Amino acid sequence: MPTVLVVNVNTSPAVTDVIAAAARAAVSAATRVVALTPRFGPASVESNYESHLSAVGVLDAVQHHQGEFDAVVHAGFGEVGREALQDVLSVPVVDITEAAAHTACLLGRSFGVVTSLDRTAPAIHDRLLLAGLAGRCAGIGSVDLPVLDLETDPGVTAKAFVEQGRRLVEAGAEVVVLGCAGLSGLHGAVAAELEVPVVDGVAAAARTAESLVALGLSTSKVRSYAPPRPKPVRGWPFPNLG
Amino acid sequence: MPTVLVVNVNTSPAVTDVIAAAARAAVSAATRVVALTPRFGPASVESNYESHLSAVGVLDAVQHHQGEFDAVVHAGFGEVGREALQDVLSVPVVDITEAAAHTACLLGRSFGVVTSLDRTAPAIHDRLLLAGLAGRCAGIGSVDLPVLDLETDPGVTAKAFVEQGRRLVEAGAEVVVLGCAGLSGLHGAVAAELEVPVVDGVAAAARTAESLVALGLSTSKVRSYAPPRPKPVRGWPFPNLG
Amino acid sequence: MPTVLVVNVNTSPAVTDVIAAAARAAVSAATRVVALTPRFGPASVESNYESHLSAVGVLDAVQHHQGEFDAVVHAGFGEVGREALQDVLSVPVVDITEAAAHTACLLGRSFGVVTSLDRTAPAIHDRLLLAGLAGRCAGIGSVDLPVLDLETDPGVTAKAFVEQGRRLVEAGAEVVVLGCAGLSGLHGAVAAELEVPVVDGVAAAARTAESLVALGLSTSKVRSYAPPRPKPVRGWPFPNLG
Amino acid sequence: MPTVLVVNVNTSPAVTDVIAAAARAAVSAATRVVALTPRFGPASVESNYESHLSAVGVLDAVQHHQGEFDAVVHAGFGEVGREALQDVLSVPVVDITEAAAHTACLLGRSFGVVTSLDRTAPAIHDRLLLAGLAGRCAGIGSVDLPVLDLETDPGVTAKAFVEQGRRLVEAGAEVVVLGCAGLSGLHGAVAAELEVPVVDGVAAAARTAESLVALGLSTSKVRSYAPPRPKPVRGWPFPNLG
Amino acid sequence: MPTVLVVNVNTSPAVTDVIAAAARAAVSAATRVVALTPRFGPASVESNYESHLSAVGVLDAVQHHQGEFDAVVHAGFGEVGREALQDVLSVPVVDITEAAAHTACLLGRSFGVVTSLDRTAPAIHDRLLLAGLAGRCAGIGSVDLPVLDLETDPGVTAKAFVEQGRRLVEAGAEVVVLGCAGLSGLHGAVAAELEVPVVDGVAAAARTAESLVALGLSTSKVRSYAPPRPKPVRGWPFPNLG
Amino acid sequence: MPTVLVVNVNTSPAVTDVIAAAARAAVSAATRVVALTPRFGPASVESNYESHLSAVGVLDAVQHHQGEFDAVVHAGFGEVGREALQDVLSVPVVDITEAAAHTACLLGRSFGVVTSLDRTAPAIHDRLLLAGLAGRCAGIGSVDLPVLDLETDPGVTAKAFVEQGRRLVEAGAEVVVLGCAGLSGLHGAVAAELEVPVVDGVAAAARTAESLVALGLSTSKVRSYAPPRPKPVRGWPFPNLG
Repeated sequence: MPTVLVVNVNTSPAVTDVIAAAARAAVSAATRVVALTPRFGPASVESNYESHLSAVGVLDAVQHHQGEFDAVVHAGFGEVGREALQDVLSVPVVDITEAAAHTACLLGRSFGVVTSLDRTAPAIHDRLLLAGLAGRCAGIGSVDLPVLDLETDPGVTAKAFVEQGRRLVEAGAEVVVLGCAGLSGLHGAVAAELEVPVVDGVAAAARTAESLVALGLSTSKVRSYAPPRPKPVRGWPFPNLG
Repeated sequence: MPTVLVVNVNTSPAVTDVIAAAARAAVSAATRVVALTPRFGPASVESNYESHLSAVGVLDAVQHHQGEFDAVVHAGFGEVGREALQDVLSVPVVDITEAAAHTACLLGRSFGVVTSLDRTAPAIHDRLLLAGLAGRCAGIGSVDLPVLDLETDPGVTAKAFVEQGRRLVEAGAEVVVLGCAGLSGLHGAVAAELEVPVVDGVAAAARTAESLVALGLSTSKVRSYAPPRPKPVRGWPFPNLG
Repeated sequence: MPTVLVVNVNTSPAVTDVIAAAARAAVSAATRVVALTPRFGPASVESNYESHLSAVGVLDAVQHHQGEFDAVVHAGFGEVGREALQDVLSVPVVDITEAAAHTACLLGRSFGVVTSLDRTAPAIHDRLLLAGLAGRCAGIGSVDLPVLDLETDPGVTAKAFVEQGRRLVEAGAEVVVLGCAGLSGLHGAVAAELEVPVVDGVAAAARTAESLVALGLSTSKVRSYAPPRPKPVRGWPFPNLG
Repeated sequence: MPTVLVVNVNTSPAVTDVIAAAARAAVSAATRVVALTPRFGPASVESNYESHLSAVGVLDAVQHHQGEFDAVVHAGFGEVGREALQDVLSVPVVDITEAAAHTACLLGRSFGVVTSLDRTAPAIHDRLLLAGLAGRCAGIGSVDLPVLDLETDPGVTAKAFVEQGRRLVEAGAEVVVLGCAGLSGLHGAVAAELEVPVVDGVAAAARTAESLVALGLSTSKVRSYAPPRPKPVRGWPFPNLG
Repeated sequence: MPTVLVVNVNTSPAVTDVIAAAARAAVSAATRVVALTPRFGPASVESNYESHLSAVGVLDAVQHHQGEFDAVVHAGFGEVGREALQDVLSVPVVDITEAAAHTACLLGRSFGVVTSLDRTAPAIHDRLLLAGLAGRCAGIGSVDLPVLDLETDPGVTAKAFVEQGRRLVEAGAEVVVLGCAGLSGLHGAVAAELEVPVVDGVAAAARTAESLVALGLSTSKVRSYAPPRPKPVRGWPFPNLG
Repeated sequence: MPTVLVVNVNTSPAVTDVIAAAARAAVSAATRVVALTPRFGPASVESNYESHLSAVGVLDAVQHHQGEFDAVVHAGFGEVGREALQDVLSVPVVDITEAAAHTACLLGRSFGVVTSLDRTAPAIHDRLLLAGLAGRCAGIGSVDLPVLDLETDPGVTAKAFVEQGRRLVEAGAEVVVLGCAGLSGLHGAVAAELEVPVVDGVAAAARTAESLVALGLSTSKVRSYAPPRPKPVRGWPFPNLG
């Protein structure tokens, strides 16, 4: 039975639960989802600073993990770190930002993203630029709520999301992407309200990871993601890293 | 049981068989693949002219098809027509060029494409440009064999493919894409020879189509792919079209 | 006497008449314009589906045409099919979208397009992307009228056009393009109202076609538009195609 | 009778003669071509420095010109100055670089340029970038001869041109552009040798200028090319400028 | 003691004084700033026409200048001419548009520009396009005042600038650039009002020029900016040019 | 006396020494350079994995640093982490990749980069893409030596560098950039051999940092680089981080 590790980028177990549920609902019954919370790092990731801290927390979580796995989902929207995982793993690694964007491109000519706080929009845009898909993004809106407040009143969050989604549709988006792993739980509620497809990156990434395993495909190792050369690591405090 | 229609763009049943086998091997046991050959059109598609003719053959094949289906794979590499199918269908439509490119982007930073004849490379590049992924394509090579000769001597074709693939890897490609549906049968042989992942668009598209169905996602209908407005069609010779 | 074939993409003779008049007014007295209506296809082209159907209607019309000609104008704005004609013809083929955009670029730094229905804007944008000129397009507006209603009340259409044109000028357009062959008849009326040059694609394309003939230039045949290789065509219902 | 002013950018009358002949052969019998040589400036333009000097020589030549005219051709390949002319004239201004590139785009998917000296290639590329057409340029080669030596031994020049043109075709160019006004005289010789269309910018620009006049189109005056505001000019030595 | 020549593009000494003060305040005490006013040319530069005239005035001013210098600042925002200076000088040449944009990119992810008249915005955008930095520009606003009126009522100008700056920040700009050399005097006033960094191109360019001298770096001479080849110049009225 | 912190990204003090020397030689006598080596992390950074680990080492080094400072130089070529520093600091942060590229753009139309190992080229390209400057990069070569071997035989390294530099100049580069902080010590040796300007990122960044301080400019705090919101950090092992 293939196993997909789904790694939260923050250290809030409640968010991990939301992510796990979304991933499990997305894959087939034949695939096992194991959700990980990093052992250290910020409670939520909403800045470049936290994003870079989280990247090592995610690396640690994966390298510390006991047990086999066949693919990894990097469950942070617009965060750095996917490339680092690819270097050290032989199994495929799927970033939820990229999975969401690639999926959205199959459903409409342009997509919009609704994220938590506006300040994270530039980092999301950077990820889309590197993926080549920024030109297909009609805009990035936000519900203007911190990640850890998204679940406080799901009705309020959903309403704000739908409003932003509609604004993006007016601006040309034909698909709307949930731009934060913490929004995954809202997928059903907001999809029911919006007249366009709504893509959850966690679901898209989990399913894509399962598909890559089934197709026998994994990360190319010839250049960008070749294994790091062995070398001394000084003073690294995490036994599983470095 | 979900059904994925996989439509060949040419009218050669032997090519349809190759495509069907690749698609069946890619999807899970729970999904049924139905492969269609257009009732009319060119025996192979290697030019813009044939590509445009094939687009209506594909439309006819799908609209003429008796029986339910849950997704469609447009199995022509670098051909036009995917958008037309999206207009008239409510189920998702996946083009093999796009599925291959999106998949390759998850496996490496740059990919190369090896197609049949060099003359089809510009049309492939156009599709990648529209997808936003041309910037991630390190080059398009060709085995310099017409589509219908690809299977004549699979060993020769595979050798030419591997040679072109290596050239593209030297030029920066980290993944190689089979740039012609008729090459699908070679996937195993060439993947064994190349040190980088080899992506078959038919397999990628079939699996992606199955995934979209599982995720409950389909084409956005708000703008680009809204259903055509009802209107008179003059003199159209195909009962199922127009 | 050089002859320019101007091919309507829809099967409405009234639209062909509008196109023919615009083309005739654009070329010199020494050039003959022959306007064709496809023998089959949709009465108007406002979707990807209709665009792909129309492409074979246009091919049939040109290949069925009795009599010599020196150039072809593909008179559908934002439609597919120009490349197919180029493959099978040795004379130059000019698409009205491209002729309009290239001409507009000589008159101002940015241009806007006003089309019939907003749903056709993405396809127009795709054609501009492939041409390389999307970056010079300040926006695409629409009069929100189906093609066949454009002539119902020309005053209303012209007023809507002028309004949209002004909006685009405010957004940075320095030239406005008539984004639908069916709008050609309005050129005089709207040009009189707008303070910027107004380019009619039919006129621009007809004149450009005449110029290419005079300069002895035609489509390159070395790669993208090389003649299709001879091959069997199965079951094609159009004697002149395939 | 419409008059097209064709302005050489250098002060070598022999080059003006070549340009005049190319322009006259390109326009219809109904159009008069008047070729101008600037009263001051470098004997040939092969650097940014000379290009900027030539821009005021061209402005002076046009503003000093006695007699009516209906359009202007700026006959320097890859030179600056077209925008300045547009500001002060109400008639259309066509740059030969841009006319050549737009024309080449109608004949093939990619074009190559062969210029005089390699050092001028970057300036040509800049003009194509601003036009939006750099993405359609497969490369810029050079015959490695100064402008004033191009006519010394036309056979040698033509041979070098054909060699460079073939190299560009191998690199993907489907059309070759004469990348220097001084090469116009070679059009026939090199077109006979190359298997792709060869575009002369002077001919293309002259014909395009004539067409714009016939279509009643001229430069937009709303923003980029609005007439300069009246203001004092200090110490300007040219009575016709400033 | 290193000397930086700072050349105004217009012939208004009052503007030169503003520029000189900004440059002097920006460089270290160890560097001497010499500000030049061209001997001829327009009193202000607000059009393409004036920009091209000014380019030769700037060339003349620099070539006519008696005394050694180590770097040149081309103090016109969005004007042509920097490349011409680079051809004929061996010392570094820094354009204020480019220095401002490069500097702004180090301070924020996107920047906005506020210029004098809206009509100059397209030329500024062209310079950013050639620099590669247009994608990082969130917009170009204007205070809607001619260059020579900017100092008439500095309070009014500053207020208009702040208003436009705020509009650009709302549109995504994280840094605001003073888009006209004549605005340099306002730097303090507007920086105090805006909550984002405000970059003055004259200050940035002068400091950058000083830095290049200190680093021993100057213009590359191998291709784009190689010295012009010696050749006759006909009738050039400026003894120091040509 | 202004202080510039220059932070090595690896934990090899010998490399820090090279970087410190380059930075000290670049700034004026009035500026103090303090070079830091991270307390933990890889001995050299040559992969995405090491790059992400190094980012937290750099953050720790800066946050742990006792004493005032006015600017920070992030001395890793093509590494991640600059944005994280910008979030938590109020002083300017300059990445050597970006400083080198911006500086190179002032010296020539295109630049090339020579790095240590080819596998790091894609990460460098990503940084240039995000900066907007990838279009001005003519290529990225490598000396094919690990970072820690660059100093083993400086003559061999310099020779390999010069060879790659020449190859890039032939490919269109007019400036060559030292694409690894560990190459800084070679600047003099390779600059003497190459006929184009050679830019050392450490020198360029240190000087740029000093300039930003002098100009009173620092990171914009309104969006991308706003301070992180206070929040719990779980299990973070570094007292100075989180």
